[in-house]
Amino acid sequence: MPNQTDQFTDTTSVAIVGVGLIGGSIAAALKSRGHHGCIVGVGRNADRLQSAVSAGLIDEFATDLAKVQADLNILCTPVDHIVSQARSIAANSDGKAIFTDVGSVKERICTDLNAELPGRFVGSHPLAGSEKHGFEHADGDLFVNRLCVVTPSDHSPTEHIELIEQFWRSIGMRTLRMSPTEHDAALAQTSHLPHLVASVLAGCLPTDWLKLTSTGFADTTRIAAGDADLWTAILLQNRAHVLAACDRFETTWREFRNAIETRDATQLKQQLVRGKTVRDAIAND
Amino acid sequence: MPNQTDQFTDTTSVAIVGVGLIGGSIAAALKSRGHHGCIVGVGRNADRLQSAVSAGLIDEFATDLAKVQADLNILCTPVDHIVSQARSIAANSDGKAIFTDVGSVKERICTDLNAELPGRFVGSHPLAGSEKHGFEHADGDLFVNRLCVVTPSDHSPTEHIELIEQFWRSIGMRTLRMSPTEHDAALAQTSHLPHLVASVLAGCLPTDWLKLTSTGFADTTRIAAGDADLWTAILLQNRAHVLAACDRFETTWREFRNAIETRDATQLKQQLVRGKTVRDAIAND
Repeated sequence: MPNQTDQFTDTTSVAIVGVGLIGGSIAAALKSRGHHGCIVGVGRNADRLQSAVSAGLIDEFATDLAKVQADLNILCTPVDHIVSQARSIAANSDGKAIFTDVGSVKERICTDLNAELPGRFVGSHPLAGSEKHGFEHADGDLFVNRLCVVTPSDHSPTEHIELIEQFWRSIGMRTLRMSPTEHDAALAQTSHLPHLVASVLAGCLPTDWLKLTSTGFADTTRIAAGDADLWTAILLQNRAHVLAACDRFETTWREFRNAIETRDATQLKQQLVRGKTVRDAIAND
Repeated sequence: MPNQTDQFTDTTSVAIVGVGLIGGSIAAALKSRGHHGCIVGVGRNADRLQSAVSAGLIDEFATDLAKVQADLNILCTPVDHIVSQARSIAANSDGKAIFTDVGSVKERICTDLNAELPGRFVGSHPLAGSEKHGFEHADGDLFVNRLCVVTPSDHSPTEHIELIEQFWRSIGMRTLRMSPTEHDAALAQTSHLPHLVASVLAGCLPTDWLKLTSTGFADTTRIAAGDADLWTAILLQNRAHVLAACDRFETTWREFRNAIETRDATQLKQQLVRGKTVRDAIAND
């Protein structure tokens, strides 16, 4: 099968490393849109991967990164595994294969892979997901109308950036280019801080009161059900930006708390209106 | 129509003061279950109430509290309006009418109304709701399988407590008796703190990053869209318990933040697992 590294087409062969919820949903999205190129699922567990083949999600599977040969490699594994896995695939590929990933933190991954695979890696972060795990929850429409942040380096060849953007658009996403650092600063606030807050809110609940929770508590803590190892890696890999986001949260928290302590209804209402205004501006739910 | 103050039946006449999302949903729940007793909607805006009559949600309406004559009066107005409105209805009723409310804070309301309407008031808090407003969003199944906390005083007649419990069960709820103080301590943690946290999280977001939010941010901040006046009253009326809940949040927050600052992956994962364990134990979503 010829490498098509100048553009993404329906015959491009795709290796998906990590066939979980995100990787599985990418496979499902390609399949449901009639992709003809071979879709290879890559992972450690042959039984699980065979099940994904049987489910029609992927065409083939591989458990040895050194044997992966695809035009486009998409790393859908935890952020602390992506660099070494891309390296293993690249070491044995023909030098034309293109790489991207779906990691929630971009600076470290992009710095390392731009150095190791010059011109062949363009980082991505599709802003779509779920607290669920496993390809059994794969959803071919998970990405539709969602935003994918693409984080090229200054040296990324234009045609490779465009190939990656074509790929994400082919499964229904909008794309936006940002630098890895800009991405990490923003996502610390819009994604990593909410995870931290949801987890604190759930974690500080005295167990006796569990029965007195309702839909508000359930919504606000939903993402705390995410995988703990995955989120440990994300929060530590984006440590500096997450701490900056924590500072912003603490500043607003103190204003709120002070308004309650001093019984300042005007100030408290103003804070609540500020939160409501931001929330009302979000269209994507 | 005879007063039926010994039990709640399908001929009990019901006055719903405040025909918004909750009041409207109570009316819809009664109607959809074939309630025969007259359902009177009470409020300030005759045009709105006439629309609720036209929509088949209520049978009659009243804008003058002094003219409300029903077996059961349910106050579905903001927590800082409930006491005075119950007082106005009671001043002109025949002394047999029973009162309950749906307020999110119970101690002050129950103290005042148990004193003013001895034996005739039993506080309630149905744990169901939405960030939406208005009877147009009324949902007759909003309460199904949800918990209603009933907060009698030591002097509440058993038959009146049971009447109120029969009422909530008739629209599909489970009921649980608690003291007003126990209720307020628990709900500060399970409902008022999540609102505060959601509002802080939304309020501290730099506007430029609004476009980089996804489903996680949307879930975690959803309840911040609630009415600011309503929540100002709730947070201030339950001030002491809310501040105690804030203390619990801050303790866990500092543990989390410290784990990130010191790059302590073991401690961070432990905190994330703690949050996940609580969240996984919630069944009601």
